Amino acid sequence: MKHLGARLTELKPGVAELRAHHREELTQQHGYFHAGVSASLADVACGYAAYTLMPENSSVLTVEYKINLIAPADGEELIARARVVRSGRTLKICTADVYARKGQAETHCATMLATMMCLAGKSDGMRQIDCWRTALGAIPGFPAE
Amino acid sequence: MKHLGARLTELKPGVAELRAHHREELTQQHGYFHAGVSASLADVACGYAAYTLMPENSSVLTVEYKINLIAPADGEELIARARVVRSGRTLKICTADVYARKGQAETHCATMLATMMCLAGKSDGMRQIDCWRTALGAIPGFPAE
Amino acid sequence: MKHLGARLTELKPGVAELRAHHREELTQQHGYFHAGVSASLADVACGYAAYTLMPENSSVLTVEYKINLIAPADGEELIARARVVRSGRTLKICTADVYARKGQAETHCATMLATMMCLAGKSDGMRQIDCWRTALGAIPGFPAE
Amino acid sequence: MKHLGARLTELKPGVAELRAHHREELTQQHGYFHAGVSASLADVACGYAAYTLMPENSSVLTVEYKINLIAPADGEELIARARVVRSGRTLKICTADVYARKGQAETHCATMLATMMCLAGKSDGMRQIDCWRTALGAIPGFPAE
Repeated sequence: MKHLGARLTELKPGVAELRAHHREELTQQHGYFHAGVSASLADVACGYAAYTLMPENSSVLTVEYKINLIAPADGEELIARARVVRSGRTLKICTADVYARKGQAETHCATMLATMMCLAGKSDGMRQIDCWRTALGAIPGFPAE
Repeated sequence: MKHLGARLTELKPGVAELRAHHREELTQQHGYFHAGVSASLADVACGYAAYTLMPENSSVLTVEYKINLIAPADGEELIARARVVRSGRTLKICTADVYARKGQAETHCATMLATMMCLAGKSDGMRQIDCWRTALGAIPGFPAE
Repeated sequence: MKHLGARLTELKPGVAELRAHHREELTQQHGYFHAGVSASLADVACGYAAYTLMPENSSVLTVEYKINLIAPADGEELIARARVVRSGRTLKICTADVYARKGQAETHCATMLATMMCLAGKSDGMRQIDCWRTALGAIPGFPAE
Repeated sequence: MKHLGARLTELKPGVAELRAHHREELTQQHGYFHAGVSASLADVACGYAAYTLMPENSSVLTVEYKINLIAPADGEELIARARVVRSGRTLKICTADVYARKGQAETHCATMLATMMCLAGKSDGMRQIDCWRTALGAIPGFPAE
């Protein structure tokens, strides 16, 4: 998140939006955002969306995702919008779409289908996104639970 | 690639290996490589593997991939090994496995199944990885075609 | 299609809906539709949706798909709704959602993200779905092109 | 399984092989096995492979899979070979490859990457494959646990 320079611009139960401004180190030779940046932004957005439906003392990890890269991510800002499609107790199935914004126009540049896992209590040693409760506290109107 | 600090450590027809050393900006709060780094390294390795089977004046782009994150990427070095499973004229289907190396021990931390596309001549405006012929020229014994 | 007993209940540019009635041989031990039936119905719906945006003399094949099975397919009828997310010249990226209908209630039981390929003229020997133009002719108001 | 007419031809910890003979109702207009048959066979093979590493009183369900269809499934017999790539407590990540056999020659026609879930005790209402312990008992040398 820090590395991507992403900020959380929407968060409500089952929904999250992240945005990252264009920066030199996030782009490739044509000035487009790297595919890896689109994937990471979408992945983290799915994680946030899933996390909004998990209990207080849990952590979230990405089990797997599939991403289709459908247009070059050419814009001033990259936007990932994620939502939970199915909220099981252990697994949350999420989709995310990534858009590159240029002025007012948004281009749909990637789409993701992901499986996020809820870890009760401490992490099992896999990739954990903690510190989220803190981050979420910074969002006006959140938490909703 | 520059951003990941990755280097191409093997390249032969249908096969590629990439490695990236542990660096502060590639890791998350626990010191593990970010999932996004594993995914990017595997994606680029698939691209290289696919590209070895494409004609001279073509470019390669990632249509889509699926990645399963199976263990924390905890190590001094991240290694992505890719190979082409099926080489069609337009599409190359590739798999990649990502390992985190700690001393001599390697932990399998991610597995990818990807679809790469061959673009004849100029890019169609989607994400293009060019300059590869140049990079490949730097590999002893390459190109094999 | 014949095997699934599926019928095309909607078809317009970039969109397709297929339905299959509950039949003994499409279900498993609990009387739910088999996961394989959900996947096949969604796959074929994506193929139709993609095909509506392809030229007259082409054929369509499935490059790959990912499916998340999110609830048991328990109902009298299985419905797959597909739409094209991005229509490239060669590749069409599609999503499909599968619902099990019981009376008026629909349960969302699977979601798919697929890559379909357009083959100009004759098939290249891979899985071809032809005879579609004929099928499409049976849909009132079709073709839209 | 009954529907596919598949039989389990290998089963050991983390590994399973299934085979299905060519039958009219499993094929499409060109006489190839349906993509849906390849996917189902691979899915079930992954389920068996995963199940060999699960406790006695559990059930297995498919969370999701991705399949790339890489060649027409043209042959007398379809063979799916699955193995567990990572065996977590709750999730088993599996790969499967599908081959069409014609005489002695095998053609690689599909590759799958799947996430299987272990359900302790009774099913949570999602797609459950039970009766497996019985089936496994029929395999000489099984169970290995």
